Amino acid sequence: MEFANRLERLSPYVPGEQPKIEGLIKLNTNENPFPPAPGVKEAVLQAAENLQKYSDPEAAVLCQALAETFGLKKEEVICGNGSDEILAFAFLAFCDKDHPAVFPRVTYGFYEVLANLFQVPTRRFELQADLSIDPAECCQKGETVFLANPNAPTGILMPLSSVERILKADPDRVVVLDEAYADFAPENGRSLIERYENLLIVRTFSKSRSLAGGRLGFALGNQKLIEGMRRIKDSFHPYNVNAMTQAAGISVLKAEAYTKKTADQVIKTRERTKKVLKDQGFELTDSAANFLFLKKAGFEGKTLAEELRKKKILVRHFNTPGIEDYLRVSVGSEEEMDFFLKAITELTATEKWESEREKE
Amino acid sequence: MEFANRLERLSPYVPGEQPKIEGLIKLNTNENPFPPAPGVKEAVLQAAENLQKYSDPEAAVLCQALAETFGLKKEEVICGNGSDEILAFAFLAFCDKDHPAVFPRVTYGFYEVLANLFQVPTRRFELQADLSIDPAECCQKGETVFLANPNAPTGILMPLSSVERILKADPDRVVVLDEAYADFAPENGRSLIERYENLLIVRTFSKSRSLAGGRLGFALGNQKLIEGMRRIKDSFHPYNVNAMTQAAGISVLKAEAYTKKTADQVIKTRERTKKVLKDQGFELTDSAANFLFLKKAGFEGKTLAEELRKKKILVRHFNTPGIEDYLRVSVGSEEEMDFFLKAITELTATEKWESEREKE
Repeated sequence: MEFANRLERLSPYVPGEQPKIEGLIKLNTNENPFPPAPGVKEAVLQAAENLQKYSDPEAAVLCQALAETFGLKKEEVICGNGSDEILAFAFLAFCDKDHPAVFPRVTYGFYEVLANLFQVPTRRFELQADLSIDPAECCQKGETVFLANPNAPTGILMPLSSVERILKADPDRVVVLDEAYADFAPENGRSLIERYENLLIVRTFSKSRSLAGGRLGFALGNQKLIEGMRRIKDSFHPYNVNAMTQAAGISVLKAEAYTKKTADQVIKTRERTKKVLKDQGFELTDSAANFLFLKKAGFEGKTLAEELRKKKILVRHFNTPGIEDYLRVSVGSEEEMDFFLKAITELTATEKWESEREKE
Repeated sequence: MEFANRLERLSPYVPGEQPKIEGLIKLNTNENPFPPAPGVKEAVLQAAENLQKYSDPEAAVLCQALAETFGLKKEEVICGNGSDEILAFAFLAFCDKDHPAVFPRVTYGFYEVLANLFQVPTRRFELQADLSIDPAECCQKGETVFLANPNAPTGILMPLSSVERILKADPDRVVVLDEAYADFAPENGRSLIERYENLLIVRTFSKSRSLAGGRLGFALGNQKLIEGMRRIKDSFHPYNVNAMTQAAGISVLKAEAYTKKTADQVIKTRERTKKVLKDQGFELTDSAANFLFLKKAGFEGKTLAEELRKKKILVRHFNTPGIEDYLRVSVGSEEEMDFFLKAITELTATEKWESEREKE
């Protein structure tokens, strides 16, 4: 049997484990500990009344709601079946053999997978010693930039001033700013859209909006960029967002106060957990996302992840040179983090951590 | 701003109109007049309880249910965000510059759109005078075949013996048998899977299973083909089917008797409508799908479609050489077809059609 040439060269993305075992604490795929906003279930049920009809291929009501939420025009918004689909569209719209992609070697692993799939040449560069991204590496003319900010899996935020430097380096090339975790960070790129025609911001409902299972992502940017993305979408799958997910998304956007409140709680839990771990001698990045990135001298990341699994806690370990010692740990509920802290304390130290929480 | 080279050459698919006007009779996108099977709403609601967690990237329960429904192994099934996504994966898995695609010039318009998007060379051939496909045209060695069966928008079914002839012509090349409308046809390719390793059958929940708005498609075939498709899926979007749609699909498969009953009713309505129109002097193909393909001497297809729209009935007209005179009319409910017959009778003839129905 003959397959397309690309198939042999693929190395598909390996998502975090989705265990079917009950009772595991899942801190491995950066899900939100809070349920979706009130109203989502009713909205979904209403959409389910009429599933024999196609969904709106333009997702017009949802795009309008997003436009209003972000103070943009509807033509500056496009929705996707998760932000992974949006990223795939961006590769198809802005990259090919004449338009190579650039991104750090340590970042969201899906960029490399998509570049392979669509046979896009790439330049990958190393993170700096402190695991941050050197903006100068993203300033070569003639490359389409993919920048996760905060970066994954480090959680480190590049300041907006550095993002602007990248945007200015080559106004003819698109900078894809992947802000999956923006709602947990102190600043984001929204305010740059009007000033930089080459900025495409990618967002998701999977993290701060608690809709990971619904699959909803979107992009914001200049109308010309969005029109290019839309041409790809309508050439790939015009009806890409199903009716139930459109309804869920619209409903979530009506409850922005809930999104803000729950994101604030995740940030609070993150900072508390960070402090406890630091006091125990862990090294942590200054994560601005809904996860921690941590290691402890003398402990192997892989072994720690395995030991945590034995204690029914799933975290993510990457076999990637430079970050093998680290664990990425999603910020769950207060109770889940207590459970995690107890377990990792038992595995790595004798000092007590409970006292920290009592002080708060 | 620089875009990828492919963007200029794209001609995105134009889906049938999804009107926001109330009271229109939609016979333009081949939707099912019946609602999804009982149980779907409850299943969706249950899935909506836990949307903060990712959906199962393997859609394991759904794939297992499909495998059981079709008497296959789970490894012989893959699911997609609608069958359009499945078709896109098939182009990526089985076509490239060395593996051109072949399909009739008049067929599902999306094949050409996808070939353009992924820059796959194509050979397109003409239908025969009776609008059927000559299987000999699909028998050249070294081409990946895309065969809609029944074909769109003609509804004409190629007999299985001819499909087998195509499968035998080059066992090293994949034949994608797009059976979106198979449940309305007297035969389908399921029984060929065990005998032809190069057969990939594509199906959808949008038509006979009344889930157009849920977006769910799937492919059946030899394990090697499905594994190739899976590598593409995991390189494009591992979580491609959201949790609510997975739940809806599982629920629909528990109600195969409902699917059969409603499909049988659609077939009955199709045949009744066909007979009325034939008696009025319309020319119709022998459609084995859930739509009619019809014309009447002396009437322009485009004008008829416009006139029907004025009477609040949407049908599909294609500005495609060779079929400009035809209308594609979805088979709706008995009442919708009565309304359609009344309208088209008023527009094209003085004879009465009501007597036909009374006879039945």
